[in-house]
Amino acid sequence: MTAPTDTAPTDTAPTPSDTARTAPPHGYTLPLSPSGRSAMVTPPPWHFSGDVVMADYRVDPEAAARFLPPELTLGPDPGAAAAVFAEWQWCSDDGAELADPARCRFAEFLILLACEYRGRPLARCPYAWVDEPVPLVRGWIQGMPKQFGQVHQIRPAQVGKAGPRLAPGGRFDAALSAGGRRVAEAAVTVEGRADGPPFLHTVPLVHTRLFPAWLPGEEPVTRLVTSEVSDVEFSEIWTGRAELRFPDLPDADLAGLVPVEVGRGYVFSYAETLHHGRELEPA
Amino acid sequence: MTAPTDTAPTDTAPTPSDTARTAPPHGYTLPLSPSGRSAMVTPPPWHFSGDVVMADYRVDPEAAARFLPPELTLGPDPGAAAAVFAEWQWCSDDGAELADPARCRFAEFLILLACEYRGRPLARCPYAWVDEPVPLVRGWIQGMPKQFGQVHQIRPAQVGKAGPRLAPGGRFDAALSAGGRRVAEAAVTVEGRADGPPFLHTVPLVHTRLFPAWLPGEEPVTRLVTSEVSDVEFSEIWTGRAELRFPDLPDADLAGLVPVEVGRGYVFSYAETLHHGRELEPA
Amino acid sequence: MTAPTDTAPTDTAPTPSDTARTAPPHGYTLPLSPSGRSAMVTPPPWHFSGDVVMADYRVDPEAAARFLPPELTLGPDPGAAAAVFAEWQWCSDDGAELADPARCRFAEFLILLACEYRGRPLARCPYAWVDEPVPLVRGWIQGMPKQFGQVHQIRPAQVGKAGPRLAPGGRFDAALSAGGRRVAEAAVTVEGRADGPPFLHTVPLVHTRLFPAWLPGEEPVTRLVTSEVSDVEFSEIWTGRAELRFPDLPDADLAGLVPVEVGRGYVFSYAETLHHGRELEPA
Amino acid sequence: MTAPTDTAPTDTAPTPSDTARTAPPHGYTLPLSPSGRSAMVTPPPWHFSGDVVMADYRVDPEAAARFLPPELTLGPDPGAAAAVFAEWQWCSDDGAELADPARCRFAEFLILLACEYRGRPLARCPYAWVDEPVPLVRGWIQGMPKQFGQVHQIRPAQVGKAGPRLAPGGRFDAALSAGGRRVAEAAVTVEGRADGPPFLHTVPLVHTRLFPAWLPGEEPVTRLVTSEVSDVEFSEIWTGRAELRFPDLPDADLAGLVPVEVGRGYVFSYAETLHHGRELEPA
Repeated sequence: MTAPTDTAPTDTAPTPSDTARTAPPHGYTLPLSPSGRSAMVTPPPWHFSGDVVMADYRVDPEAAARFLPPELTLGPDPGAAAAVFAEWQWCSDDGAELADPARCRFAEFLILLACEYRGRPLARCPYAWVDEPVPLVRGWIQGMPKQFGQVHQIRPAQVGKAGPRLAPGGRFDAALSAGGRRVAEAAVTVEGRADGPPFLHTVPLVHTRLFPAWLPGEEPVTRLVTSEVSDVEFSEIWTGRAELRFPDLPDADLAGLVPVEVGRGYVFSYAETLHHGRELEPA
Repeated sequence: MTAPTDTAPTDTAPTPSDTARTAPPHGYTLPLSPSGRSAMVTPPPWHFSGDVVMADYRVDPEAAARFLPPELTLGPDPGAAAAVFAEWQWCSDDGAELADPARCRFAEFLILLACEYRGRPLARCPYAWVDEPVPLVRGWIQGMPKQFGQVHQIRPAQVGKAGPRLAPGGRFDAALSAGGRRVAEAAVTVEGRADGPPFLHTVPLVHTRLFPAWLPGEEPVTRLVTSEVSDVEFSEIWTGRAELRFPDLPDADLAGLVPVEVGRGYVFSYAETLHHGRELEPA
Repeated sequence: MTAPTDTAPTDTAPTPSDTARTAPPHGYTLPLSPSGRSAMVTPPPWHFSGDVVMADYRVDPEAAARFLPPELTLGPDPGAAAAVFAEWQWCSDDGAELADPARCRFAEFLILLACEYRGRPLARCPYAWVDEPVPLVRGWIQGMPKQFGQVHQIRPAQVGKAGPRLAPGGRFDAALSAGGRRVAEAAVTVEGRADGPPFLHTVPLVHTRLFPAWLPGEEPVTRLVTSEVSDVEFSEIWTGRAELRFPDLPDADLAGLVPVEVGRGYVFSYAETLHHGRELEPA
Repeated sequence: MTAPTDTAPTDTAPTPSDTARTAPPHGYTLPLSPSGRSAMVTPPPWHFSGDVVMADYRVDPEAAARFLPPELTLGPDPGAAAAVFAEWQWCSDDGAELADPARCRFAEFLILLACEYRGRPLARCPYAWVDEPVPLVRGWIQGMPKQFGQVHQIRPAQVGKAGPRLAPGGRFDAALSAGGRRVAEAAVTVEGRADGPPFLHTVPLVHTRLFPAWLPGEEPVTRLVTSEVSDVEFSEIWTGRAELRFPDLPDADLAGLVPVEVGRGYVFSYAETLHHGRELEPA
């Protein structure tokens, strides 16, 4: 059985009893409904504009390798990693969500690991947290392993004393709590302009889409996919000294990804439009 | 490609470099990790024990029909519906979650519609809300269209004046807010014991499992499945007069399911173990 | 200037311009409004019915003494303390809040220290956390130092496997997070009935009401007051082995109150009506 | 009895038993503790930097008058009002809170009414909501009637499509939910630069400090105070067309303050340092 897609015609006006039989409930995601407009997640593309506080760091390469599916290798810089805090606005292609500020904002923390597929540099996201349910579910559609957390970061202040300026000396702290525990903390103290964006924020993400088994004997559906984006835009990029700590880890596997060394920090704004995935090894 | 399942051996101790290559990251759900224990959702079965405040009601049968996939019909009582508030504890088979009360409790509101598959009575859940992310994601694995909301209900008091007794005259209010709006409110004023459980809480739920399209040209995976449960247990069931309102609807489709008549209310405790789904029409 | 109290007549119907001048905005608390009914906190008495998971423990008596105002002494059992988790329903005298389950429930964690005033046994609450704003502000009116936190505890299950029975072997975990950190965790494993309620739950609380200085040169108003309650009711009281930890302390002063020994645990329901304070040493 | 103030010496090192007797627990607010550093609210001054979305509007002057204490009059523009959404960072004088981004950010919605004291223009805040507990309690110290709500507003985007630019045509929506209800919604569509800041954001706020009665026969302490600020800073101020709605009012008194006319909207950044109050009519 194949569900009617979101592009099924919904604007004809059959008689009521016809409707019930000819236009089954549909939607890009659950909940399915007669018009398709109850779906929790709108169909792509999705536009994102956000502010990023990010720290490059290094993990034990053996530990990083244990988070890679067999198709991927560590590549030329084994153990390269990044901790990325971001505060986003998002909208669908018609921009409708921007009229509901309770819906179109979220904050995110993710860990990235450098990796490679047949010589192509990619980033693997073993863990991610967001503070709103729609981005969580939208992440799972893509294979991005988003969990729920409270993500906070300092914003540059335009005026007054309650915030740093985006300028040398400005200090930008960020923190993640999940499950009522303080999982991660970072700080970037800006020193000057960077020559370009941090490497792990420029390569495509590679995710494992997973539809878990639910029926008896069922095998889970898994697919290794990259995310296809357009309209990538960076503001000026500031860089400086970074700090990164994981004070209260919820899980022994995550403990393998704590820093063995902390590198540079970055503060910048970023935008992209996310269109769809692309299978790494089409069947 | 098929992911290793959660039952892959994880307790052998190969050399580190072997590990990285021979035991890919796995888990019942995302996040995948070396041990499989980072998965947000544990594999079934899951045990649930909860307290329910529920109202039978009737909707326009034409509207109800528009929420049914073509395989289902309205059955002998078209328009029969229920609004169910529940406050749950849950745990996996080893009970581990009960040691973390921040993790094992959630509250839920769902709407049920009476329906039938080839003469077999079932309940369809067009909308559901929960207040925690794990039950939300776990619902989507089953095809249950859970969204995020704040769900509150009155508890019976054992002592004192700040709560009703579970006895004639006791009034149990419940409310759902979602997206910062008050979506639903119900109240049951207990009159006496019921002869048996409310019908729509006794029939299997039938869900549409949906794995949305993400790759270019991909068709979404959809499957019509029922939920298989065991160890169903009801406490004494109290019944009485019910009220039900939907004060501030977020969505025009949901508006089709407001009450045309409100029936009896019920207050009871309930438990079940949820094992897996079963396809309604196996391919 | 003295504000009209909440008992000012509000039901006469003067002409509008008279009203504006003759019935100033009033209320038991802020916000003041024409009818007095916008007040965030209703005037006492307040009724409470709740479920308690509690552990007796001992702290360093020197540390406990540093939390007592000069009028109080440690009494005959220096260092006796308790950690109390409770899940409450509350209502004003007319019970109106019980119709709004989003308003009348909250959870609380508090620390109690044994103390004495001129030979009269009392309990001092140096720290308390609640998960709703109304109980927080109401606490400050009384002098109870409530802060904001996430408080969770296991409930006994009537049916099914997802919860302990209130019977020997039943284990009741509870946890407090505040500021995104896991501050406290406790567990009580029930062994049998207790002969009576735990001592620190039977003596009056003694608080320091504090109205902080805000005007230049102003001295804060402080008063040492006990809380006057009536209609105290205990359910059957179960007791057993207790565990208590403070994994991630937010503050060095609180660190002085960690357990040097953990005593018995208790699980019970409790109700009271809270009427007003009484000054310990009237001016 | 007068509590030791926060400036009491805390860094001497008496013997433990002396300490317990000579340095009673203290703090600017509750909780009192040996060092004074457990206090929920730090002593002023407090610095604020924020982003404001604001709409001028008009209410029924009779209704406005009913919210003014007898010392105040409506002044030359009866019924002038404003709805102010703001997203803040704050810190104490040492800036310590900026290292904890989970603590130093909050969002606020408040209503302002034009008024006058003996010819001096002031603004009265009958209702305010914030989304964090520290600003709530800090508001009550000043007499600002802050309640708890979810406050959201659109941010200007630097890059990408998911947000307006701070330029003609940019539309900034904002919303307040409280008690699970959508209480207020506003939008400002920017048309150009304003000549100066909106009037009601330039005059001092006048609050009624209120310490509610708790002891038998006690009169509440109330004082009419203005807030003394310094280091006021405005960014460039953008103005445009405004919308303002109150869709789901929690309270009949608040209903008196709905718009009879909506005026201009404003978008700007703002900073101030808040030092203390000043009594309007010293005793």
